[in-house]
Amino acid sequence: MMQAMGSRRWAIADGYIPSSSASDDPALVSHESACILNAGDIPANIEVTVFFSDREPAGPYRLAIAPRRTVHLRFNDLDDPEPVPRDTPYACVIESDAPIIVQQTRLDSRRPDHALLSTIAYCQE
Amino acid sequence: MMQAMGSRRWAIADGYIPSSSASDDPALVSHESACILNAGDIPANIEVTVFFSDREPAGPYRLAIAPRRTVHLRFNDLDDPEPVPRDTPYACVIESDAPIIVQQTRLDSRRPDHALLSTIAYCQE
Amino acid sequence: MMQAMGSRRWAIADGYIPSSSASDDPALVSHESACILNAGDIPANIEVTVFFSDREPAGPYRLAIAPRRTVHLRFNDLDDPEPVPRDTPYACVIESDAPIIVQQTRLDSRRPDHALLSTIAYCQE
Amino acid sequence: MMQAMGSRRWAIADGYIPSSSASDDPALVSHESACILNAGDIPANIEVTVFFSDREPAGPYRLAIAPRRTVHLRFNDLDDPEPVPRDTPYACVIESDAPIIVQQTRLDSRRPDHALLSTIAYCQE
Repeated sequence: MMQAMGSRRWAIADGYIPSSSASDDPALVSHESACILNAGDIPANIEVTVFFSDREPAGPYRLAIAPRRTVHLRFNDLDDPEPVPRDTPYACVIESDAPIIVQQTRLDSRRPDHALLSTIAYCQE
Repeated sequence: MMQAMGSRRWAIADGYIPSSSASDDPALVSHESACILNAGDIPANIEVTVFFSDREPAGPYRLAIAPRRTVHLRFNDLDDPEPVPRDTPYACVIESDAPIIVQQTRLDSRRPDHALLSTIAYCQE
Repeated sequence: MMQAMGSRRWAIADGYIPSSSASDDPALVSHESACILNAGDIPANIEVTVFFSDREPAGPYRLAIAPRRTVHLRFNDLDDPEPVPRDTPYACVIESDAPIIVQQTRLDSRRPDHALLSTIAYCQE
Repeated sequence: MMQAMGSRRWAIADGYIPSSSASDDPALVSHESACILNAGDIPANIEVTVFFSDREPAGPYRLAIAPRRTVHLRFNDLDDPEPVPRDTPYACVIESDAPIIVQQTRLDSRRPDHALLSTIAYCQE
């Protein structure tokens, strides 16, 4: 049994999903992910709140991650309560009832040879 | 009401805006951003100081971010008190009177298929 | 003699090894690395546990790093107790009996002009 | 006068300078930098130690950064006490007598459309 690892509150400040993609291969469509690891032995119930520059936040988006599992959540796929708009700067806060680890990654395939960015997100108890 | 999240002092050590771009699409012009999230319930009044290798710092550049909003600030657009020079190594310190989260991102389109870099900035109370 | 530096527990949340590569040059094959520094004066005995979305974790994968040495470990090369699957989201926890520093890097050469991502991993004692 | 900001000990675990470059423009030659900010009011005297996989560390490499200045140090340019080898995994520890902030960036131009990676380094007092 692995000791609990991670934090219950995380933030990503640079969210952006390009609306265009040079490829229609699902793996290479422009997308942004919050990759979340629940390394512990209890489920993690998670709420994602999405912030914008000119309106009140959207969400919460809810998901659960089973013990000892990882979910690579694509912001492109969120639709409840509403989709995340493309070509629009956003940010997010991710809150969990159990410790998790969050890393953000973007694949930008507006051009044929795609670009990547990634960073461990900001955390704070 | 979301609990205050973030820090009041942040730094980015690798600032650099390439002067050239393979595209004139504003979204794909070479640029560098400080993406800032104010997840709290009070406005954040922010001062940015820009450091160079061979002269005294420039600034402060001032902006305010409303509660529950994000601003993806392009260093390219700063001009008061002075523009940020292109093709010139710089760094910056970002200070706020309310907790914020800062992430740096650069899009480098000197070549047709652009490159990206991003990192959560360094913070310290 | 350098003072011990680093942490004994690290995590990477976005693991992904593309199965294809535009080049067969070993340096440019799509790969993902955990770059580990043991800056101290005693050996570091390390265990890597790999997490998935839909099954129990794999591992531990074991390695040792001598004092004052770095190992840039390719997840592609792990095979004991089992290889890391390609085109499959994973995450990992890296535990050591001596302080180490961990940075993740991915080279994605699915397209001819490859993309890179890197971040210092998440650490917690 | 700005309050001291940063840490006195930093580490980068993934060092690697490709030996080839698709361009001979000095700005686009494959290179790796430690971008260092001294935001304080006293000089920072800095020592860099470079670690390898199969030999004792090289260094210290010494530099000083004046108050309120940034240096974007290219590992490519280090030559005293010895150059940093190309195509060779390395890591480094950066120690300073005054607080500094360190960010690592690599520009990899082995292919015509270069790739970038960057991360705030790991710090520990």
